[in-house]
Amino acid sequence: MKLFVYHTPEATPTDQLPDCAVVIDVLRATTTIATALHAGAEAVQTFADLDELFQFSETWQQTPFLRAGERGGQQVEGCELGNSPRSCTPEMVAGKRLFLTTTNGTRALKRVEQAPTVITAAQVNRQSVVKFLQTEQPDTVWFVGSGWQGDYSLEDTVCAGAIAKSLWNGDSDQLGNDEVIGAISLYQQWQQDLFGLFKLASHGQRLLRLDNEIDIRYCAQSDTLAVLPIQTEPGVLKAYRH
Amino acid sequence: MKLFVYHTPEATPTDQLPDCAVVIDVLRATTTIATALHAGAEAVQTFADLDELFQFSETWQQTPFLRAGERGGQQVEGCELGNSPRSCTPEMVAGKRLFLTTTNGTRALKRVEQAPTVITAAQVNRQSVVKFLQTEQPDTVWFVGSGWQGDYSLEDTVCAGAIAKSLWNGDSDQLGNDEVIGAISLYQQWQQDLFGLFKLASHGQRLLRLDNEIDIRYCAQSDTLAVLPIQTEPGVLKAYRH
Repeated sequence: MKLFVYHTPEATPTDQLPDCAVVIDVLRATTTIATALHAGAEAVQTFADLDELFQFSETWQQTPFLRAGERGGQQVEGCELGNSPRSCTPEMVAGKRLFLTTTNGTRALKRVEQAPTVITAAQVNRQSVVKFLQTEQPDTVWFVGSGWQGDYSLEDTVCAGAIAKSLWNGDSDQLGNDEVIGAISLYQQWQQDLFGLFKLASHGQRLLRLDNEIDIRYCAQSDTLAVLPIQTEPGVLKAYRH
Repeated sequence: MKLFVYHTPEATPTDQLPDCAVVIDVLRATTTIATALHAGAEAVQTFADLDELFQFSETWQQTPFLRAGERGGQQVEGCELGNSPRSCTPEMVAGKRLFLTTTNGTRALKRVEQAPTVITAAQVNRQSVVKFLQTEQPDTVWFVGSGWQGDYSLEDTVCAGAIAKSLWNGDSDQLGNDEVIGAISLYQQWQQDLFGLFKLASHGQRLLRLDNEIDIRYCAQSDTLAVLPIQTEPGVLKAYRH
């Protein structure tokens, strides 16, 4: 299994795709996706922009649904939910499809949607991702961070490192690029205080200014949700059943 | 002092410049620059391409000179030197100007050459760089890694982290971007085995294939050279005199 870490969707090679793409947007899209599916949502369907989300939701009749829209860290008018994973309680989401658009997370999903296998990872469901990759043994794995408007982000990189650390056998052959070691080192250095790290991160700082420390604390938990979101068609994620 | 780490010249904002730019190409351009100036070279002058280097060197009459050209890790025909820092002995370079072009390092210098202060850093002269920044206290500092053909590199990032760690007071106000924490963590994790880290790095692997482990070992040394290369005019670096 050859591992590649890309800090942002823009950093990925445009002429290739991996056997398995792992999309990461810890603050907060992929944490929300894991939480919603764990709470029994039928699926999470992502959209690159709000107009598309609203248009599509008006035609949707298969299941009850909720619209979750966030821009700049805040809930969008006309949506029932923002991007806070803590809103995704079983009472709220069970049996429903969540239509989701976020500032950065959906860009990363879009970039790799043609890969044979696409899953999403966050710190809360890290162990489920590790287990899936250990079982499936894809030849090439891309960890694609969402970043913030094209920039490197600590929270996505450390999550990539947390997963990669469990998969790396210590041999250079497994390292697809230098970023893998950078991500693993970041995790090794901060694994005892991910909450502290997220508060130093620029996007964590942004959430703190929006008085949202409680979301940061939620997203910084490790292995709390046994759920693996997997793409079933472009843009649609469902809980993986073995 | 606000710190920014950019993994590559391409990652820097195009509409800004810092008070002080620190250019890093540990394998091997900035290690070579530090070594040459420490060995008494009159200056190191960098060129974006070989043609420019050859043309300029033919007109140069002020001092004796040497041409150092490297592409893909190997010495270019018609040059007296490649990019190995170990060639820069006092016997070879003292009193001479070194005309240098390298695959990646000169791109980074070019990008920031209009900044008020431009210095170069490598692991071998890290402490001199730290001391200079602590004394001068520029408001904004960019650490610009060279990377390899536009990609993140471990050796440049860890060097940025080694310097930033000595300057960071632990406060989030000093963090210009998330990359700073990533770089510091990489250094903290690997500071006892930089040679091991460099051998895992993709560019280290490339040098190993060229049978050049001895250069990697040289470049992985910390604080061995008390010298600060500083730009005196665009593309020209001289040893800083207090």
